[in-house]
Amino acid sequence: MSIWLLPESIADVLPSEARKSENLRRALLDRFRVYGYEMVMPPLLEYLESLLAGGGEDLGLRTFKLVDQLSGRTMGVRADITPQVSRIDAHLLNRPGVTRLCYAGSVLETRPRGLHATREPYQIGAELYGHGGIEADLEIQQLLLDSVALVGLRDVRLDLGHAGILSALFEWAPAAAVHAYEIFSALAGKDVPRLHDVTASLAPQARDALRALPTLYGEREVLERARHVLPPLPAIGRALDDLDCLAAQAVLPAPGARGGEVAQVQFDLADLGGSYQYHTGVIFSAYVAGVPNAIARGGRYDRIGRLFGRDRPAIGFSLDLRELARISPVEARSSAIFAPWTRDAALSARIAALRDAGEIVIQALPGHPHDLDEFACDRELVARDGEWILVARQII
Amino acid sequence: MSIWLLPESIADVLPSEARKSENLRRALLDRFRVYGYEMVMPPLLEYLESLLAGGGEDLGLRTFKLVDQLSGRTMGVRADITPQVSRIDAHLLNRPGVTRLCYAGSVLETRPRGLHATREPYQIGAELYGHGGIEADLEIQQLLLDSVALVGLRDVRLDLGHAGILSALFEWAPAAAVHAYEIFSALAGKDVPRLHDVTASLAPQARDALRALPTLYGEREVLERARHVLPPLPAIGRALDDLDCLAAQAVLPAPGARGGEVAQVQFDLADLGGSYQYHTGVIFSAYVAGVPNAIARGGRYDRIGRLFGRDRPAIGFSLDLRELARISPVEARSSAIFAPWTRDAALSARIAALRDAGEIVIQALPGHPHDLDEFACDRELVARDGEWILVARQII
Repeated sequence: MSIWLLPESIADVLPSEARKSENLRRALLDRFRVYGYEMVMPPLLEYLESLLAGGGEDLGLRTFKLVDQLSGRTMGVRADITPQVSRIDAHLLNRPGVTRLCYAGSVLETRPRGLHATREPYQIGAELYGHGGIEADLEIQQLLLDSVALVGLRDVRLDLGHAGILSALFEWAPAAAVHAYEIFSALAGKDVPRLHDVTASLAPQARDALRALPTLYGEREVLERARHVLPPLPAIGRALDDLDCLAAQAVLPAPGARGGEVAQVQFDLADLGGSYQYHTGVIFSAYVAGVPNAIARGGRYDRIGRLFGRDRPAIGFSLDLRELARISPVEARSSAIFAPWTRDAALSARIAALRDAGEIVIQALPGHPHDLDEFACDRELVARDGEWILVARQII
Repeated sequence: MSIWLLPESIADVLPSEARKSENLRRALLDRFRVYGYEMVMPPLLEYLESLLAGGGEDLGLRTFKLVDQLSGRTMGVRADITPQVSRIDAHLLNRPGVTRLCYAGSVLETRPRGLHATREPYQIGAELYGHGGIEADLEIQQLLLDSVALVGLRDVRLDLGHAGILSALFEWAPAAAVHAYEIFSALAGKDVPRLHDVTASLAPQARDALRALPTLYGEREVLERARHVLPPLPAIGRALDDLDCLAAQAVLPAPGARGGEVAQVQFDLADLGGSYQYHTGVIFSAYVAGVPNAIARGGRYDRIGRLFGRDRPAIGFSLDLRELARISPVEARSSAIFAPWTRDAALSARIAALRDAGEIVIQALPGHPHDLDEFACDRELVARDGEWILVARQII
């Protein structure tokens, strides 16, 4: 087999796309920063138990395992950064008040999530710890929408759900909880026939409630409908109240709070916030026209911190930078300056000054025709009357 | 065992250090860019054969192995990005002319390189393909010195060596080549007693030549000395000529070509350009006062491209961003603006405008005292006479 062949669903990112990714990465991190989110960089590798803390079966299946030569223990390569950041908040920083953290980095998954999905997403996100009130939800959602606007995407729809509904149903109907993983997968995949199959053996009340979840999708009236269709459990009532309250406040100042645009808000009570199952409260997913999968996901997850010894509220969201770069309309080609190769001190000084001013200056190496992919050399440095001057150049 | 415990030689990067790393990362990539280096992002995972192409035994031992569920084949997590970039140049881009590429990303190593070394360095570097002349060496060395200056490090020393010397000795003395790995390790570790041991059984000429290498260290006179001490092989003559030529040209315009400072250049004929053994020509290492290990390493490696089906000149260098951030004197603390939490539209608009201007604005969440690590809130937004104005604030 050819040694230049890459594994399935693993790819190189070539210059023009890499530049686009890098620009987006910086823009997003800068946006998080002006909201006061401090950056952390958790490691690629951890002991498996730490990486899987709080996650469901799927997280375990998606995590690559390795043996640590130093300890003999099993390590994993992270498939999700959120639990790592939660560990940092709980254990390392351990600050008394609100903590805002953000991160950006590659994760690996043992299997791709779809035909064209990568096994190496680049996860970028923000997390807010220590505040359980709706203000944290609003700030995180605003930051999410602000981030999406930055990428140049318009007509964003925000779908809200609540992880507390399904867990209340499982608590109320233990027979359903036995099939939790199957039910979870069916709901996450919006696979109604499979949901019917796995709930077929349940008591009618539990079965009907679970089968109703995928129908509870749409505008705010969904919440009223849910109060009638779902069993009147206190936890479900609280979850619906939370969503109601958020909907009332969420005349969301969308894309940058600048244009006065309002993102469309919908409810999806079958949405479970991704497949890793650590969410405990409100969950949300952002969609844009023409892209089937959510471009950002987030929600409340108070469980992970508890496992790391610190029980406090947590909420956050993340995006896949690779996917964002693919769909972002923002272009990245740059103009550059072409210069000949000589060791002339005046030319070296001129080039250094141009580079310091942020100009791209490409020095031709002797004997090579000039051809570049990413850079368009629209100017060049030429010697005229003993001076190096910039002149326009035909782009080839 | 506590689940928050990280594996040995693996660590989180917390806010202030992360910010410093991120700033350096951007500054370096921007520097590479103004020299015309295009960014690529090779994957974390590849089939093992691809990752190890061109490297020596040590690269294999340092690479973590994984089984690919999809193909059943063995994959590795990269321990070095240079061979990946070489594969991209040779196989994916396959451009006729000179190609300049740069990259930044984490690598993993099965074992740390020293007591305080990490197993997850963050490798950042630049590579130039397609030009075998000395101009490429000079450009890469200038970029290396420019990069080091950017990090805020002064008094940089550049040590030059040549991988062709050792390989010429091995070709000339096949009995020595049998012990290549041991000899290589002893030289790389500057372990003279071990070098004596592993060369003890060799013929006197080969033994003396190999044992002479660690003594060939110092100013330019080293090259003259080498011509007398080493056997008069054509390949060694050419290697010494290369170094001589470089030394003649290398009145290197050090730190940014601005101050007119000249980096100190020395020769180290026992330097082998790291432990991965793929170098074939001139190699160089940059050192700064007070730091025992090289802060940047680079050199010529024409062998890897050949393995990927394209035999052409290659030269480059790389740095470890983690180590650079640790030793860099540049500080990263930022001032920020504190704002109360209200849904007042005027306040939201004011905050959005400040954030757009790059200011960090931290909105207090109700009921939480304000305490932050990285940000120093030296101003705050207060309502006065119906307007939101910025006032100075005591830093707590």
